[in-house]
This record gives sequence, structure tokens and C-alpha cells, in this order.
Amino acid sequence: MLRLYDYFESGNAYKVRLLLHQLDIPFELVPVDILEGETRNAAFEEKNLNHRVPVLEWPDGRCLAESNAILLHLAEGTDFLPSDPFDRALATQWMFFEQYSHEPYIAVVRFWHFSGTVGEHEDELEAKVARGYEALDVMERHLEGRSFFVADRYSVADIALYAYTHVAHEGKFDLDRYANIRAWLERVASQPRYVGIEDEVGTKA
Amino acid sequence: MLRLYDYFESGNAYKVRLLLHQLDIPFELVPVDILEGETRNAAFEEKNLNHRVPVLEWPDGRCLAESNAILLHLAEGTDFLPSDPFDRALATQWMFFEQYSHEPYIAVVRFWHFSGTVGEHEDELEAKVARGYEALDVMERHLEGRSFFVADRYSVADIALYAYTHVAHEGKFDLDRYANIRAWLERVASQPRYVGIEDEVGTKA
Repeated sequence: MLRLYDYFESGNAYKVRLLLHQLDIPFELVPVDILEGETRNAAFEEKNLNHRVPVLEWPDGRCLAESNAILLHLAEGTDFLPSDPFDRALATQWMFFEQYSHEPYIAVVRFWHFSGTVGEHEDELEAKVARGYEALDVMERHLEGRSFFVADRYSVADIALYAYTHVAHEGKFDLDRYANIRAWLERVASQPRYVGIEDEVGTKA
Repeated sequence: MLRLYDYFESGNAYKVRLLLHQLDIPFELVPVDILEGETRNAAFEEKNLNHRVPVLEWPDGRCLAESNAILLHLAEGTDFLPSDPFDRALATQWMFFEQYSHEPYIAVVRFWHFSGTVGEHEDELEAKVARGYEALDVMERHLEGRSFFVADRYSVADIALYAYTHVAHEGKFDLDRYANIRAWLERVASQPRYVGIEDEVGTKA
């Protein structure tokens, strides 16, 4: 069975849990406490030299890191990735947007809040929040007249962007003025086999 | 003909120039001066709402942003992307690593140096440099006993990581203790149809 090295509060790990569940692929969850440094030991380094969750491990020991690389790989040949090559490229584009222009601001500010370290980052907070809103502005404009990010159907691009957008309020981001984003969040949450970030999926290792 | 919206000093734009040249695909270069805000006007926003170069434009007007999404799309079905699905996933993994754990430190510090703004970022510099070295450490360890990042052959994963690593010294990063990285840089630079970041390729629009 596949094993997912997971941190419960991580939106990046949630992306993989959500897609595995929607694909109806059984998996074992291995909780890794990143706050306790559990990604820094030698055993974890063999799975990912870059000390990050999620990591997906196959029964033969092969490991894949980087949430969006995992999504793209699992979605290959399924309805969760467009079959048209250019649409696939656009899905990939939005997934790189998410990791470069969205996650480092929206996820990081949320992490500071829930880890109780926001006070230590006061000098950086304003700039990070501003960049987070810039990412939300881009999403809001792109979603004008669209149901989903690519080819007007639900794909891994939506999963990638949904993970931290739907919990952006935990980083004190206000989505009130983002009507298109809010409607899209509801569309994602109404997909078949949707599970929330707090829902228990997978079996315990 | 394809059009590449390009900024000469951008490693992200260079990645695309290098691959287009290696694939022998003709293209027009459209220089965009990011320092002068030329990605912020309405005409550019129609190509990329996220205000970034590179953007690749097809003759029918379709546009693709995000350097690594462009690389993956252009490399589809060529020798520059592994044909094995898991190897492709690993190539994608390293490309997300590059955009999340490498570029925001190594490229950003280099940009501060050559744009003459390093003095404005003194409070952030030490942390950014440390994270840059962490990325180099990961690369150095992965390259132990390997010629290239994935499947022991040159691929878009190498192009993505090469772009800012080979100019890391312009951000005052010292590669002396990274023997594996230095040997790999030489292997990349000796590939057929290699061009440097300063070499003129493409035609002027």
C-alpha cells in the first residue's frame, strides 16, 4: 500500500490526501511532526533530502516529494488532469504559481498564526500579507467567468490552489471581496468524494 | 513563430531560451524591462496576470507562463524529459524544489546584488543566504554518485536547476565546497547546443 508521510495541518499534505481519496486509492498515513523536527533525522532524509512533507512512498521503497509533483503524477491518465497537452501545461503553470506566488505568503502567514510565532515575524508580516493578497487578486481575476482554473473543469490545479486558499482566514486573510474565489471554493468542496483538511482519511500505519 | 517575453538577466527566462535553442525551435525575443515595470501594464497582463517573465506566446495568441511549466510542455515527447512516468515525476519534483527552495533564495539574493538594492535588504540577507546554501546542500548530496538529477541523463530538471546555480556567485554564493555541483555544472555546459545566459539566441521581434 502507498504510504503518505503527512503533517495534519499542512495544506500541502492535505492536497495529496484529497486526491488519493478522490481517486479511491488506499493509503497509509504516517504522521510526521514537523514542529518537533521529525523531518530532520536520517531516516526521513532517505525519503526526502529537503526535509519536507508530504512524501509519498511506494511499497518498493520509491519516494516522491513536492506536493504538486505528487498530484501531477497521481493524476496522470485520470479525469483530474486535462488530456489536452496545452491544458495540461496551463494546469502545471497554475501549480507553479501556487508554489511560488501563493503558498510562501498565504500558507506561511497561516503557519505563523497557528504555531504562535506571528509575534517573531512582525517585521515581515505586512509584506507577506500584501503578497498573499496579490496572489488572491490574480486568482479572482482569472476566475471571472470561469468555473475552475483550467478548461472549465475540476483538476489538480484546483486542488493545489484550494488547499491553502480555503484556510486563508486562519492567516487572517479576508476573502470578503473575492466573490469569484468564494464561489470556486464552494464548487471544489461540492466535488464527488471531497474530504476536508480535518477529515480522517487513509489508514494509520 | 513562438514569441518569448524575456528579461535578459532572468535565469527563469534563460531556462526557456536554452531549451528552445537545444530543441532547435525558432523563436522571437521580446525584451521586457521588469525594472521599469513593463510587466505591470494592461497589454502584458493579458499574457500573464501574475506580471512575470518569461511568457511564451504561440502564433494563435495562447500564452504560457511559469518557466518550469514552459520547460515541461516544450520537453514533452523529447529526450529532455524522461519517458518513464516515475522518472518524469522525479523531474517535476526537482523543478518544484527549484521554484520553492532554491530560486527564492539564490535568485533573489543575486537580483539584490545586480540591481544595487542589497543595502535595502540587509535585515533579510543572512536568512536568505542561509536558505540558499541549504538548497545547495540538498543538490550536492543528491548529486553524489550521479551525473544528472534524474535517471542519470540530462533533462529539464537539470536546466531548471542550472539556470540560477551557475550564476550563484553573482549573489556572492561560494561554490568551492560543492564539488559535485561544480562537476554537474560543467556537464550541463558541455551539452550539445548549449548556450550561456549572455549568448544571443532567437531573433529580435
